[in-house]
Amino acid sequence: MTPAPRARQTVGGLGESGILRILNRRFAAVPAAGDWPEGTVGPGDDAAVVAAPDGRFVITTDAMAQDRDFRLDWPAVHGVMFDGHGLAGGYSTGWKAAAQNLSDINAMGGEPSGLLLALTMPPATPVAWIDGLAAGLAGAVRHLGATRCRIVGGDLGSDDRITVAVTATGDLDGRPAVRRTLPPAARAVTAGHELDLVLCGRAGWAAAGLNVLETPRGRLSELLRAAEQAEQSEHAEPGVRRLAALAAAAQLRPRPVLGAGRVAAEAGALAMMDVSDGVLKDAGRLAAANGLRAELDPDWVRREASALMPLACALDPASGQRTAERWVSAGGEDYGLLAALPAGAAVPAGFRRIGRLVAESGTPAAAEHEGSTGSTGSVGGADGWDHFTDR
Amino acid sequence: MTPAPRARQTVGGLGESGILRILNRRFAAVPAAGDWPEGTVGPGDDAAVVAAPDGRFVITTDAMAQDRDFRLDWPAVHGVMFDGHGLAGGYSTGWKAAAQNLSDINAMGGEPSGLLLALTMPPATPVAWIDGLAAGLAGAVRHLGATRCRIVGGDLGSDDRITVAVTATGDLDGRPAVRRTLPPAARAVTAGHELDLVLCGRAGWAAAGLNVLETPRGRLSELLRAAEQAEQSEHAEPGVRRLAALAAAAQLRPRPVLGAGRVAAEAGALAMMDVSDGVLKDAGRLAAANGLRAELDPDWVRREASALMPLACALDPASGQRTAERWVSAGGEDYGLLAALPAGAAVPAGFRRIGRLVAESGTPAAAEHEGSTGSTGSVGGADGWDHFTDR
Repeated sequence: MTPAPRARQTVGGLGESGILRILNRRFAAVPAAGDWPEGTVGPGDDAAVVAAPDGRFVITTDAMAQDRDFRLDWPAVHGVMFDGHGLAGGYSTGWKAAAQNLSDINAMGGEPSGLLLALTMPPATPVAWIDGLAAGLAGAVRHLGATRCRIVGGDLGSDDRITVAVTATGDLDGRPAVRRTLPPAARAVTAGHELDLVLCGRAGWAAAGLNVLETPRGRLSELLRAAEQAEQSEHAEPGVRRLAALAAAAQLRPRPVLGAGRVAAEAGALAMMDVSDGVLKDAGRLAAANGLRAELDPDWVRREASALMPLACALDPASGQRTAERWVSAGGEDYGLLAALPAGAAVPAGFRRIGRLVAESGTPAAAEHEGSTGSTGSVGGADGWDHFTDR
Repeated sequence: MTPAPRARQTVGGLGESGILRILNRRFAAVPAAGDWPEGTVGPGDDAAVVAAPDGRFVITTDAMAQDRDFRLDWPAVHGVMFDGHGLAGGYSTGWKAAAQNLSDINAMGGEPSGLLLALTMPPATPVAWIDGLAAGLAGAVRHLGATRCRIVGGDLGSDDRITVAVTATGDLDGRPAVRRTLPPAARAVTAGHELDLVLCGRAGWAAAGLNVLETPRGRLSELLRAAEQAEQSEHAEPGVRRLAALAAAAQLRPRPVLGAGRVAAEAGALAMMDVSDGVLKDAGRLAAANGLRAELDPDWVRREASALMPLACALDPASGQRTAERWVSAGGEDYGLLAALPAGAAVPAGFRRIGRLVAESGTPAAAEHEGSTGSTGSVGGADGWDHFTDR
C-alpha cells in the first residue's frame, strides 16, 4: 500500500518510479481497471495494448498548459461552496483533462475505452498536486460514467511548468462514426433543405465560472453580498452565491454527457461535434464544414441566459443581460454536444433545438443581424475562442 | 496549395486554422496518407477513427519540452555536416518525437498505424519552425519505414514555451505483445536458468552527439581541429569531424529499427523493451521486472565504445576511453531494442548478444563490480537517466 503523500513533499524527491506508484494507485480505482481482457496490456510497459472489438478505434488528444488552461491556485469545489485550498487544483485539472478528451470520443458517437497521460512538470511540483491530478482523471472516468474506460499508460518528463497532455480512445461498437461533415448520401438528400441544430448539455456556465474564478476574492465577495441583499427582497432562486459556486464547478469540473453521442447517432444525427470554443463558433464550424450557415435561435439564447442572469447582473451590474447572453453564445468549455438532424426530426432524448443550419446566402450573417446582441447566427467561427489570435 | 511559410512569420499571425493547414500539408506526405480505409476518419474532426485489424491496438505517448528534450537553436544536419540554421531544429524535434514513440510500438512487437500530435506553443513561434516540426514527424514516419502509419490528428494550444506530445498506435497482426515481463509459461521453464540479452541498434551515439551539441561551437572547432591534426599522422578512419556529425545526427534524428520488434517476436523473444534511458539502466529494468539481474558483457561495451573512441578522446583528452564506455553503457536516446532470449538461442537477425540476465544473488552487483569502469552489470536501474533526480 502506497502511503498518502505528505503535504510538502515534491516530485523531485520521489523520482520517476515513486511518481508512477502515486499515479497508478489512483488509476487502479476506475471501475474497468480490475479487468484487463486476454491479450491486452496495462500500464508499465513500453506501450499498452487495448481491445478494439469492432476492428477500429476512436482516438483524440488534448494538451493543457499551466496558467493557460489551468491554474495551480484554483480553488476546490465542495458542494455549493468553493475555497482556496490550492492543491485541489490538481483534481480539477485532471478531471478537466479527462473530460475534454472523453467529450471528443462522445462527439464521434463512441464509448471511451482508454486514457493516456503525458505529464511534464518541475521537480518542485507538490506530490499532493499530482496525486490530485491522478485522482481527478480517475474521478472523471468514474463520475462521468465511462465504465469501460481504463487508464492505460503515460509518460513523465520534467519542464519549468506543468503540461498535461491526455489521449483518449473509444469504441464505436460497429456503428459508423458521426463526423462534422454529413455523409455523402445524406448530403444528396438534404441539399437545399435546412437542418435542425440540437444541443445536449449546458452553454455558458463554464464561461460564467471563469468570470467568477478570475474575479479577485475580495471583490467577488462584495459583489455577491450586494446581489444577495437585493435578492432577499425578491425571494429569487437559486441564490446568487450558489449560482457562482455552480458556475465555478462547471468551469473546473465540466460534465459532458457521455451517453449523448450514442443516443444522437442512433437517433439519426447526420453531423456532430462537441462545444469546446463556444456555441456560436462551433456551430459556425459545423455549418462551414458542410457549406452551410448556422443560425442560433435568439429565444434559446435568452432562455439559456436567464438562469445565469442573477450571476451576470451581480458581476456586471451595468449590462448583466448582455454578459449572460455572451456567456451562452460565445463561452467555451462546457463540452455540450451539437448535432445536426433533418429539419423536423424528433429531437433525441437529452437534446433541445437551439437553431438551424441553412444554405449560405449572399448576405453575410453578420450584416443580417447587425444591431442585435450578437447572439444569433454567424458564418464559420467569427466569434468564440482561438488560441492564437485575439478572439 | 498552401504557400511555403515566410521566414519571419509567427503562428500568432496565422490563427489555428492557418496552423492546421501548414501541419496537414506535411502530414499528407506520409505514404499511407493517401489511403483511409472504409470506416476510418482522418484529421479535422473531434477525433480520428483508426483501423485495428486484429481487434486490439498498441498505444503509447511521450511529451517533449523545450530546453529539456529539445532546443530551438539546434543545428540542421546535412550529411556529415551540421550548421547553425536554427529553424531546422523544428525538423529534428518532430523527427525525434515521432521516432521515440514509434520505437515504443516496435518494442511491443507492433507495427505503427497512427500518430497524434498535441502541440502547445507561444504565439511568437516562427511558422517555419512548426512547418519543420511537421515535416520532421512525417520524415521519420517515411524514412524509418513506418509504411502503414498515418498522422491521424492532434491538438493546438498556447503556452509560454513549446511542448510536443506525440501519441502512437500500432498493430500486432494477431501476435501476442512482447512485454517487459516474461509470459508465465516461459517463467516456469526458464526459472533458475539465465537468459541471453540481445540488442538491435547502436548504443552511446546519441549521448556522444549530445556532448557534441552542448560543446560551445568555438571550443568544439578547436578540439576537432586538434584531433584532426593528430589523426593525419595515424590515417585514422572515420575522421573525427565526420564522427562528430554522425553522433549529432544520432542525437537529433534517432533511427530505431522498426522491423526489429517483429523479427525478435517471431524469433522467440521472451521479454523486450527499447533503450531510452541507457543500456545499463534499461537492462536493469528488464531484469528487475523479472526478478533477475542484468550483466553487460564488458567486451561488448569496449567493442561498442571503440568506434566512438576518436570522438571521446577529442572531446575529453584526459579520459577518452572512460567517456566512450560511459556513453555506451549509460547514454540514452539511441532507441535500440533490448530483448531477452533463452540462453544459447539463435540471435535474431540485426541483433547481437550484449550480456545476460541472471538470478539475483545475495551479492549486490554494485559491490561485485566495484572499481570497474561502471560499464558492467547493475541491479534495477542504478545508472542512466531519471527525469526527476540527479541520475
